[in-house]
Amino acid sequence: MQLTRAADYGVRVLMHLADADPNRRSSLTDLADAAEVTPAFLSKVLQRLVQAGMVASKRGKRGGFVLLPRARGATLLEILLALDGVPQLNVCLGPERCRRSTWCAAHPVWQEAQDRMREVLSSITLDQLATRSRGRRLALPVQ
Amino acid sequence: MQLTRAADYGVRVLMHLADADPNRRSSLTDLADAAEVTPAFLSKVLQRLVQAGMVASKRGKRGGFVLLPRARGATLLEILLALDGVPQLNVCLGPERCRRSTWCAAHPVWQEAQDRMREVLSSITLDQLATRSRGRRLALPVQ
Repeated sequence: MQLTRAADYGVRVLMHLADADPNRRSSLTDLADAAEVTPAFLSKVLQRLVQAGMVASKRGKRGGFVLLPRARGATLLEILLALDGVPQLNVCLGPERCRRSTWCAAHPVWQEAQDRMREVLSSITLDQLATRSRGRRLALPVQ
Repeated sequence: MQLTRAADYGVRVLMHLADADPNRRSSLTDLADAAEVTPAFLSKVLQRLVQAGMVASKRGKRGGFVLLPRARGATLLEILLALDGVPQLNVCLGPERCRRSTWCAAHPVWQEAQDRMREVLSSITLDQLATRSRGRRLALPVQ
């Protein structure tokens, strides 16, 4: 019951892009360094973010990746949706309605636990996360 | 980010045992029917519940499984702990502290989402779940 690595690194790279110079494209290598992951793995994550319309890529010598405006206002939950599908606590909460759900008392508890979790993930946007990370980094003691 | 099948079926079988006659042992076949899973798979789940001191088993002709008192008051979260380890939303919340956590703004959001989810799972005991399930079953229209 854990986020996938793709979701974790996707959020890392989006926060980095949200804080980068919007007039400059970031290379795959730079982004992989920032997210602390291999370029090969990050490349697949970036493909999904491009497909979701959150990131644009341009090939060639002056190519690279840039954040698209719609990603800035996306909530953490929307980003996970793009990378993972909706986080779902138990299989019984999926689209195929569980036939025990008419009486099983665990069903509404799983649902409520999932709802509370999603509320938190819906409460913050990428732009807010990037701003907070910048503030927290600046507040760190210089090493 | 989903409960394991072991956790799901473990909760099903515990709810069934909590509602069964405490003076009668339930066979593996009966429990597998109740949880809607194969006896082979359920057998492994029951082993973990025995190890966790929630269920006792007795071999032989009059053998079978019975719920132990400590399971009745166990919360859903405690049951998941016994079956799965603690549900953890992201790897960065694990025992090895993530070195980005000093500044990464996503870290406290994962933590809060996980805390809200766990609060719900800690808010109900097995006995309460079994009582509610019984009530909901009785309220179903007769087919």
